[in-house]
Amino acid sequence: MIYNDLVNILKDTDRIISTENINRDYFTDGLKRIYGEADVLVFPVNTEEVSCVLKYAYKSNIKVTPRGSGTGLVGGTVPTERGIILDLSKMNKIINLDKSTFTVEVESGVVLNQLQQYVENEGLFYPPDPGEKTATIGGNISTNAGGMRAVKYGVTRDYVRKLEVVLANGTILNLGGDTIKNSSGLDLKDLFIGSEGTLGVITKAFLKVIPKPKKSISAIIAFDALELGIESVNRIINENINATAIEFMEKKVIENTERYLNLKFPCSSGNSYLLLTFDGETDSEIELNSNKAKEVSAKSGAVDFILLKDKEEINNTWQIRGALVKAVEVISEEEPVDIVVPIDKIVEFIDFTKILEEKYKIQVVSFGHAGDGNIHLCVVRNGIEESLWREKSHKLLKELYCKCYELNGVTSGEHGIGISKKEYFLRNTSNKNIEYMREIKKVFDDKFILNNNKVYIQ
Amino acid sequence: MIYNDLVNILKDTDRIISTENINRDYFTDGLKRIYGEADVLVFPVNTEEVSCVLKYAYKSNIKVTPRGSGTGLVGGTVPTERGIILDLSKMNKIINLDKSTFTVEVESGVVLNQLQQYVENEGLFYPPDPGEKTATIGGNISTNAGGMRAVKYGVTRDYVRKLEVVLANGTILNLGGDTIKNSSGLDLKDLFIGSEGTLGVITKAFLKVIPKPKKSISAIIAFDALELGIESVNRIINENINATAIEFMEKKVIENTERYLNLKFPCSSGNSYLLLTFDGETDSEIELNSNKAKEVSAKSGAVDFILLKDKEEINNTWQIRGALVKAVEVISEEEPVDIVVPIDKIVEFIDFTKILEEKYKIQVVSFGHAGDGNIHLCVVRNGIEESLWREKSHKLLKELYCKCYELNGVTSGEHGIGISKKEYFLRNTSNKNIEYMREIKKVFDDKFILNNNKVYIQ
Ligand SMILES: Cc1cc2nc3c(=O)[nH]c(=O)nc-3n(C[C@H](O)[C@H](O)[C@H](O)COP(=O)(O)OP(=O)(O)OC[C@H]3O[C@@H](n4cnc5c(N)ncnc54)[C@H](O)[C@@H]3O)c2cc1C
Ligand SMILES: Cc1cc2nc3c(=O)[nH]c(=O)nc-3n(C[C@H](O)[C@H](O)[C@H](O)COP(=O)(O)OP(=O)(O)OC[C@H]3O[C@@H](n4cnc5c(N)ncnc54)[C@H](O)[C@@H]3O)c2cc1C
Repeated sequence: MIYNDLVNILKDTDRIISTENINRDYFTDGLKRIYGEADVLVFPVNTEEVSCVLKYAYKSNIKVTPRGSGTGLVGGTVPTERGIILDLSKMNKIINLDKSTFTVEVESGVVLNQLQQYVENEGLFYPPDPGEKTATIGGNISTNAGGMRAVKYGVTRDYVRKLEVVLANGTILNLGGDTIKNSSGLDLKDLFIGSEGTLGVITKAFLKVIPKPKKSISAIIAFDALELGIESVNRIINENINATAIEFMEKKVIENTERYLNLKFPCSSGNSYLLLTFDGETDSEIELNSNKAKEVSAKSGAVDFILLKDKEEINNTWQIRGALVKAVEVISEEEPVDIVVPIDKIVEFIDFTKILEEKYKIQVVSFGHAGDGNIHLCVVRNGIEESLWREKSHKLLKELYCKCYELNGVTSGEHGIGISKKEYFLRNTSNKNIEYMREIKKVFDDKFILNNNKVYIQ
Repeated sequence: MIYNDLVNILKDTDRIISTENINRDYFTDGLKRIYGEADVLVFPVNTEEVSCVLKYAYKSNIKVTPRGSGTGLVGGTVPTERGIILDLSKMNKIINLDKSTFTVEVESGVVLNQLQQYVENEGLFYPPDPGEKTATIGGNISTNAGGMRAVKYGVTRDYVRKLEVVLANGTILNLGGDTIKNSSGLDLKDLFIGSEGTLGVITKAFLKVIPKPKKSISAIIAFDALELGIESVNRIINENINATAIEFMEKKVIENTERYLNLKFPCSSGNSYLLLTFDGETDSEIELNSNKAKEVSAKSGAVDFILLKDKEEINNTWQIRGALVKAVEVISEEEPVDIVVPIDKIVEFIDFTKILEEKYKIQVVSFGHAGDGNIHLCVVRNGIEESLWREKSHKLLKELYCKCYELNGVTSGEHGIGISKKEYFLRNTSNKNIEYMREIKKVFDDKFILNNNKVYIQ
């Protein structure tokens, strides 16, 4: 029925898949843990088609789940109420690069990797750099993805000049503008960034790019204890050294990843590490900054400072950093958490995870973006029996999120809420705020067609 | 009646002024050209009082005009439908400076000057720097003020971590968070930034500060023609030189200001000027950048490059830059315009203003933020008879804004829409966008209590 209607609307059968032919991967997200079901999977190729599909769905009261590459970590692409999966991945053209305004115009299905390569070949740079390079720009914008370079460059939100979105009823809106500044009316654009597909479908984005920095170096700083490392992060920020990335990792996590990748981390002293990068225009500029980082971290008791010069060392280090989660995953099912707390609360928060580890006898692995307080945790199953794991991990997570809010943190720094974090998000967020989010939802989607059930929606 | 009610509610008479005792300055804005009238002027001293006044106004269907220092340039503080003027200027406490998270918490009536001095005394820096230092932070946030340092540092929006706002019905909301990143639900905070008092009253703001740059220099680059100067702006940005400010000015505007201030601009060659600043941690870093600016501007045919070293020269230059508008104003009434266009469209736009000058025989003076395409224009009356001036300037402005949108610009880069720009904003903005702005207005203020008639409101 829905299938036939869509075939009639789009005059195409290749791009419309009926329920029995849908690969199960489309019913889930990047973690492949929660599965839904849907009636039809459709691949529009332009904004007009997106609009037609939505007009139809709206009129017929059919739920729609927007989807990019499906790499999300919070269940945002799980179709919880059947209906249509609207997959944007075939809208993957880089439309225009305007060097005189530093703006690149892309369809939302363009993949991060593709965009980064494209602009870098032109001597330009798209700073947001979340770990998953096969994600679409539409998915990045919908989750307001961050990544390691956020310390210096900010997050996806900071690079969106303009959006084309299609609302649930098929209306096409253009939000934001080509200009750098704008104080002309309400800022609708920012409402759609990070809205996880609940307000509209992003079909096009005009993104800011910058000139590509010419030089880059990385350094590892080792400490005997995490507190010392985090203390030094504050000192480093205070020095205006402009680090591109400030990541923290603990020894046992690294060792696990070394085994998994069969690679060697270039530093063996200490128990806690900061991994920093600096980029800039000249060697002298970035060396000056890394030297200052060395100086101030020494004041916090750093036991080692290694400037990564050798290509292999650099590669090994970043490969290890990139695979921390996967290395945990191969050993055991894990629940990813991307809580963010104010930067001066990182130590207190991680100390608390250690109390929970003890209390629940569940391993909690932590690492993450120390420069912006965004802590990635893996709560590791380690063979615990299914129902016990569910019960215990749920209790542990409840306490964890509660503590996070006590420290003025929030549920998600960059992955979003989806369905997996919804319970914790709603429990800890003021009802009034949630109520206004729902009222705004109604303004753009009064029939709750798009991504119903998710994020803040009842 | 309203007066008595408010006296009862606030239990105070000093801070409640009845219509006959209100200084006329409260009925207007910074330009003192459009006047309204109001029943009562009230000065709340805390959030609770703001909430009580609004609850009362909401229940009684009385219109409310929020007001900071009243320096706005678009009529935003003109009470067009009587009611209550809610003046936030007595809520002017700097509540807390948290150096470990680089956050300063202020009441919204804190004045920009006061904030800048305060944090700079602590070795920190609040980058947004709009020309008017007596404006309140609440006013800056409500108009998303920019200023000269926006090229490097961004605008007010980029420095707001968290807001406390009071809605028309008295509800107090906290929006945003203490964390650097946030992907947790809809971004309500950004909706209030730049909303010009139409969605709620800002009572508190948590602002991001950064370490204070240790060094700063300014330079003047002279060109024979504006086009060459603007061409060199693109080259400068391309070099990643990270200029703090890139302003452009034309000779006749400077000469007028020299006469007005009786000061000398340090450069007499050429007809068009770029004024740049660089800041950073070391002399060598900023000199390297200014040298590069010199090099690349030479390629665009710069006829002079003056590094401002002498204190008096620096002062004179910035005083002249700061007084460009005032110097025009003393000669003649003028209509300020802060159109913003994509940076590669500045020349085309300014050329168009020259065509209009010819066509209408009205002087159009232009200068502004070349680094972000934000062009400030003064349309100068020069003794034209009142009704003719109204008719002609209105026609000219209509054409001007129309051209601006043709070039993908928008009405306001940093001053807002208020009532003065509303006609041009509405004429050139998609009806659909305006409609959604109005629907959002209803979510937060269904009785249209706050700043009715303004910006996007019918
Ligand atoms: C290994 C790994 C590492 C990662 N590292 C990081 C990291 O360092 N930093 C970080 O921030 N994130 C990280 N992530 C998360 C990653 O950024 C997201 O998975 C990605 O942004 C989602 O993009 P996607 O195209 O796969 O979207 P999907 O997973 O398909 O969708 C994500 C959400 O957005 C919605 N959506 C997708 N496209 C659209 C659209 N066009 N219009 C409207 N709604 C849409 C979906 O409904 C869903 O709610 C990582 C993920 C993985 C798997
Ligand atoms: C000489 C001069 C130079 C300037 N230069 C620049 C510049 O370089 N860059 C730039 O961006 N701007 C510039 N401006 C504009 C200036 O930034 C604004 O006038 C200022 O931001 C307004 O602040 P205020 O406290 O005076 O607000 P007001 O003028 O009192 O109010 C402005 C608007 O905000 C609303 N409002 C005020 N406070 C609140 C609140 N707490 N809650 C809700 N709504 C509120 C009002 O209703 C009104 O709509 C300049 C102005 C002047 C006079």
